[in-house]
Amino acid sequence: MAETWLPSLRTATPQEGFELATKLARIGVKVTQPSAEIRDKLRAAYDHDAGQLIASSQVIAIHFQTVAAANDYWRT
Amino acid sequence: MAETWLPSLRTATPQEGFELATKLARIGVKVTQPSAEIRDKLRAAYDHDAGQLIASSQVIAIHFQTVAAANDYWRT
Amino acid sequence: MAETWLPSLRTATPQEGFELATKLARIGVKVTQPSAEIRDKLRAAYDHDAGQLIASSQVIAIHFQTVAAANDYWRT
Amino acid sequence: MAETWLPSLRTATPQEGFELATKLARIGVKVTQPSAEIRDKLRAAYDHDAGQLIASSQVIAIHFQTVAAANDYWRT
Amino acid sequence: MAETWLPSLRTATPQEGFELATKLARIGVKVTQPSAEIRDKLRAAYDHDAGQLIASSQVIAIHFQTVAAANDYWRT
Amino acid sequence: MAETWLPSLRTATPQEGFELATKLARIGVKVTQPSAEIRDKLRAAYDHDAGQLIASSQVIAIHFQTVAAANDYWRT
Repeated sequence: MAETWLPSLRTATPQEGFELATKLARIGVKVTQPSAEIRDKLRAAYDHDAGQLIASSQVIAIHFQTVAAANDYWRT
Repeated sequence: MAETWLPSLRTATPQEGFELATKLARIGVKVTQPSAEIRDKLRAAYDHDAGQLIASSQVIAIHFQTVAAANDYWRT
Repeated sequence: MAETWLPSLRTATPQEGFELATKLARIGVKVTQPSAEIRDKLRAAYDHDAGQLIASSQVIAIHFQTVAAANDYWRT
Repeated sequence: MAETWLPSLRTATPQEGFELATKLARIGVKVTQPSAEIRDKLRAAYDHDAGQLIASSQVIAIHFQTVAAANDYWRT
Repeated sequence: MAETWLPSLRTATPQEGFELATKLARIGVKVTQPSAEIRDKLRAAYDHDAGQLIASSQVIAIHFQTVAAANDYWRT
Repeated sequence: MAETWLPSLRTATPQEGFELATKLARIGVKVTQPSAEIRDKLRAAYDHDAGQLIASSQVIAIHFQTVAAANDYWRT
């Protein structure tokens, strides 16, 4: 991952912030399992597993806290 | 999800903030499993599973932290 | 849930704040599984399951962070 | 629990703060399972279960964040 | 644990802060299971269990948030 | 671990901050299971386990909150 994939935590809207949080959650999986082939295989299973979907949603929630704070909650 | 579903984190009351947190938790599942049909099937199972209900409640709790902070805890 | 059940995050004491956190954790389960009958059945099982009791305690802990911050930790 | 068990989040030292966090984690279990007899039985099992010990340690960690913030990290 | 084991959350460096977080995670287990003999037995099992190693790492991460904040992130 | 492996929480970019968070998550596993041989064996299993990949991603997310706060979210 030599390319720049995270230049900033700023986003224009809360919704884009949520999308960035989703991306960060996926990158967190990717750095642990770099093989796209294996990730795709695992994904085919876990997106049918309610427990793992909820766990994924939780990781997004944690990243969204960070992104929201970085954007001062898009208050202004 | 091209439409705007999260224009702001501000809500008029803490209760509406809790409802927004619930919505964010559900969107977090939706972005991982976009098929409504599969989600409905999984939901029929997990809403009878105490562990997964508690896990869902936890994701809501994390998002509620964010929404509450964004609203300065509805102090004023 | 059209009635107002969360008018404010302010409580007079830390102890009442903890009680509010407990209530929020329960509401988080309720919004996912609205049937009181099913929740009662699940509860009869999970309150004998140490893992789920600890998980419940964790959700309360997360909400207590929010409520405590909202009350400026009852410092004054 | 009509008696006062949480008059304040202030403690004299970080160590007493950690003890308060431990107490809060236990109260979180107690409010979900009020029967001391059942809790004692469950405890006999879970304190031999590494996963549940780590989960308990995590709940303490979350409460310790709250207590530490309430005491301004005992900086002064 | 009558002796003082946590006089302060201040550390000289981030690395010492991480070590303190590790210690706090262990104390959290210790207060729940005070028997060193049982803990040693459990440890022999769980340090070969990837899920429990990751869970341990998570508890350390939560405590590190607290210790880092207490040290103002060692900014100065 | 007598050498210095964490001199600072400051990084030049959010992306380097994410990499530091990943490193911290790994160190958290390492301090619990110091044997590289055993960790490698466990890793061969858990990087094929979706639940553990998501759990690893969560630990990274928690550390990223800390690193992002330490860098004032790379705002300036």
